[in-house]
Amino acid sequence: MSDTSYILRIACEDRPGIVAAVTSALASRNANIVESNQFWDRQTNQFFLRIAISTPADIDKSQIELTLGPAVDRFNMKLKVQDLSRRPRIIIMVSKFDHAMLHLLYQIKVGWLDAEVAAIVSNHEDARKIANQEGIPFHYMPVNRENKAEQEAALADLVKESNAELIVLARYMQVLTNEFSTRFFGMIVNIHHSFLPSFKGAKPYHQAYERGVKLIGATAHYVTPDLDEGPIIEQETERVNHSMSAEDFVATGRDIEARVLARGVKYHLEGRVMLNNHRTVVFTS
Amino acid sequence: MSDTSYILRIACEDRPGIVAAVTSALASRNANIVESNQFWDRQTNQFFLRIAISTPADIDKSQIELTLGPAVDRFNMKLKVQDLSRRPRIIIMVSKFDHAMLHLLYQIKVGWLDAEVAAIVSNHEDARKIANQEGIPFHYMPVNRENKAEQEAALADLVKESNAELIVLARYMQVLTNEFSTRFFGMIVNIHHSFLPSFKGAKPYHQAYERGVKLIGATAHYVTPDLDEGPIIEQETERVNHSMSAEDFVATGRDIEARVLARGVKYHLEGRVMLNNHRTVVFTS
Amino acid sequence: MSDTSYILRIACEDRPGIVAAVTSALASRNANIVESNQFWDRQTNQFFLRIAISTPADIDKSQIELTLGPAVDRFNMKLKVQDLSRRPRIIIMVSKFDHAMLHLLYQIKVGWLDAEVAAIVSNHEDARKIANQEGIPFHYMPVNRENKAEQEAALADLVKESNAELIVLARYMQVLTNEFSTRFFGMIVNIHHSFLPSFKGAKPYHQAYERGVKLIGATAHYVTPDLDEGPIIEQETERVNHSMSAEDFVATGRDIEARVLARGVKYHLEGRVMLNNHRTVVFTS
Amino acid sequence: MSDTSYILRIACEDRPGIVAAVTSALASRNANIVESNQFWDRQTNQFFLRIAISTPADIDKSQIELTLGPAVDRFNMKLKVQDLSRRPRIIIMVSKFDHAMLHLLYQIKVGWLDAEVAAIVSNHEDARKIANQEGIPFHYMPVNRENKAEQEAALADLVKESNAELIVLARYMQVLTNEFSTRFFGMIVNIHHSFLPSFKGAKPYHQAYERGVKLIGATAHYVTPDLDEGPIIEQETERVNHSMSAEDFVATGRDIEARVLARGVKYHLEGRVMLNNHRTVVFTS
Repeated sequence: MSDTSYILRIACEDRPGIVAAVTSALASRNANIVESNQFWDRQTNQFFLRIAISTPADIDKSQIELTLGPAVDRFNMKLKVQDLSRRPRIIIMVSKFDHAMLHLLYQIKVGWLDAEVAAIVSNHEDARKIANQEGIPFHYMPVNRENKAEQEAALADLVKESNAELIVLARYMQVLTNEFSTRFFGMIVNIHHSFLPSFKGAKPYHQAYERGVKLIGATAHYVTPDLDEGPIIEQETERVNHSMSAEDFVATGRDIEARVLARGVKYHLEGRVMLNNHRTVVFTS
Repeated sequence: MSDTSYILRIACEDRPGIVAAVTSALASRNANIVESNQFWDRQTNQFFLRIAISTPADIDKSQIELTLGPAVDRFNMKLKVQDLSRRPRIIIMVSKFDHAMLHLLYQIKVGWLDAEVAAIVSNHEDARKIANQEGIPFHYMPVNRENKAEQEAALADLVKESNAELIVLARYMQVLTNEFSTRFFGMIVNIHHSFLPSFKGAKPYHQAYERGVKLIGATAHYVTPDLDEGPIIEQETERVNHSMSAEDFVATGRDIEARVLARGVKYHLEGRVMLNNHRTVVFTS
Repeated sequence: MSDTSYILRIACEDRPGIVAAVTSALASRNANIVESNQFWDRQTNQFFLRIAISTPADIDKSQIELTLGPAVDRFNMKLKVQDLSRRPRIIIMVSKFDHAMLHLLYQIKVGWLDAEVAAIVSNHEDARKIANQEGIPFHYMPVNRENKAEQEAALADLVKESNAELIVLARYMQVLTNEFSTRFFGMIVNIHHSFLPSFKGAKPYHQAYERGVKLIGATAHYVTPDLDEGPIIEQETERVNHSMSAEDFVATGRDIEARVLARGVKYHLEGRVMLNNHRTVVFTS
Repeated sequence: MSDTSYILRIACEDRPGIVAAVTSALASRNANIVESNQFWDRQTNQFFLRIAISTPADIDKSQIELTLGPAVDRFNMKLKVQDLSRRPRIIIMVSKFDHAMLHLLYQIKVGWLDAEVAAIVSNHEDARKIANQEGIPFHYMPVNRENKAEQEAALADLVKESNAELIVLARYMQVLTNEFSTRFFGMIVNIHHSFLPSFKGAKPYHQAYERGVKLIGATAHYVTPDLDEGPIIEQETERVNHSMSAEDFVATGRDIEARVLARGVKYHLEGRVMLNNHRTVVFTS
């Protein structure tokens, strides 16, 4: 996607002429459409559009917004323009299990994920070594009942200072407060180690083992105040069997979690995810 | 498996010498082991063994049981011997959607499932035509609040008269009573059209759509008085996306349901499923 | 998709303004875009566009073509307009194994596949019974070295007379001549019972067994004079293991073949497949 | 499997009494069977048996072999006894792409793979940094036409000195000589980045892209003098589509390769793989 300059995301009520208005405006600026995806939700009559464009060198973000102004007004669009020349900055939060974080760092290193890790935050010291190796600022923020509000305030400051646009909970085992989840809604992606809505909450692999399921899974979702109830971005399952213990589920699950989270983060950062109430539209390709 | 005469299933507490005792007894009768699977549940120290044997022509079931008698006594085994020269007889129950039933009938026709359909039972008339085409007795048993006990009594009679050893609920949309489920526990396999424990009860595809999951599934399980809580035999999932409606989920789900149920029934009829409390041991191969 | 009137497929060299030109023309006729997919092949600079539209009742196909005329000329587009009020007619060809054909017939019956079976053609008599049950004309066309040209001439006549727009080889075990494959290129979809390009030609499951693969598959592809080398539409694989015989592969493969072919046919009939030299663009959703 | 002391692998011609003889001998030593898998190849009448046992503390490997001696003689068995108290030592060979190696190292670190990396060998310097970080001896062995024999001699020495029992080619991009492959047959596991037998040799993802397949895969197999023709241990595939470039295939493939190789190595090290001519028996659980 190195040939892409901007990602546009548009949502509005559906009626004829939307795509014509948008693409005509873009054509008037000699923008070329590199990729385009759209979805009309028949139930709610909402229209969702994602367009990746390459533009002549002298076009900037405000000019695109200006160009699309009349269409935005006419169709009452919500428009987001994402400038791809600016690498998105993310904060990774982790507790003790580091497989999901390591996979993210590797995918960034090889260029599959286009992001810059502004900070690694943890309630444990374990990840400091990796952070140091990779030259990423590490913030140790242990959490208990007394200091939770304080630590979340520090975290909010960090988000602001670091210009991070996404917080990734890569097996961060603390529950964020309602206030924090609400304030940063749509900016926090979590990996839950079960196929939601099955096995919410603690120890999902052990719950899965007790129930005797024949597949386990993982779910990348946006965090909301309702624990493990946020809009789902990506899921995957894998086969297990009776001869496997709950610990074997944990081991099998590591790979699933790592890749489901990486895909969820990639979709988010590439502007492929749009919220449709409590569900998501995900333009995977 | 045409070279197999008997399937043995053995469950007991684990300790050294079980397999030696069983296989030595079998060797003394010149039985050859065609297939053997075992599982030791470390949590409960239960041992599960399934052995498929071919025997000389003059050995019958009672001789096998006699031969294994000392081992059964010594290890306090539960032993089941299944005679493969007798085709298992099944009753298929169906409501309006016939895809799961048709797939079972086809798999029986081509020999993948070794079974004889003793009867098709339905609370609707729709399946009568297929039953007639295939030469299978059809029983129309409409169910309402008043006649449910009566109809289940008729069904129990049918099971007895037809020597059926399995009732397959191939999208039968009525809930069986606690009495019936309890009486025939381990003899009724249902296909539920979700990845349990997600989306129990009615309209699971619509529940899945509302939740915005990215995979849907189906579950073959034994029926118990707790609705959709019985021991799981087999499950499978398939990818869906935001552009699909609940009706698209239904259509995608048909194939999953059909093959998950067929596998569940096959595993049961081939003696590959053993109950381990509320979970199953499934020796798939 | 009952709200859709027409499917447009457009291919041309890529440059700015294509989508604007097309969608502006459509908007001028009050056509609403129900679904739209596009792909820019960076290697060849070819652009592929599929648009499903709903139109006011008084717009017909020629008016759409007229409306798009200037865009077609300006961008040197190849344009195909498919009228969804006309159910596509297909011919199913089959030899002895009927699972893939039965699955197609079922998917048509339940409305997942929108098509009308103009005829079933076979070099064996086995499928006549099903054809009669379903009220579909059956044509027995046995093939040998001497009569092959003659039979293909009869088949070509049948295609013409029946207004069929697709020939589906649903496990038809005869090789069509180069002349016939070339004449009807893009109009014949075959299911090959392996994951191509592995195991071309005869007995692919036995080839797979001999090689000791751990997955088997099936491939739906367009037929070309090069045996099993045509553009691939859809593929799927499933796990096998050492304990399975070549016959077990055949049994497992039946389900894969049936659903891969059904999807391939659906994609073709819904205008989701576009040829990109010897590869395909498949807009699955 | 920390409760397991030894893995026994037995292969011989099938006839009644094998399992009885083996398990009776084991029972006489109070060995408990933790896991047992067997397979009778009907085509060749070969019998394959893998038994994991826990033994009283004072039993050693030679006593097990002695105990099984009469059975070995009577049935002309090939017997291998693997002592689990000794961690298997492996050599990892890698060129530039390090994802498969890193995944192996991680799986060893978290205990899913029970192995000790005796050395990392590479024809490039890139992996030295990781080796140093992990405290693993690194051997730089650049290869060209002139020094290949010499370098392979050095490698053979390293195998001997380090007591390695497995060489893992984790994206090692050099072809080993026929002499080396033959000498160490059954001791070298390679990951090939395609679903074999499709796309042997160089640049398989580019071959797959050119052919227009809809799934890509990876294959873990034993190395033989015939390039990419050795016995297959494990395979997996994943969906791709027309919008993906050959480089996207490469990126998607990384995850598949890493986990297929890790599973292949695990199966080998746990004695789960037995050779059946040019195919494998893999007792996965």
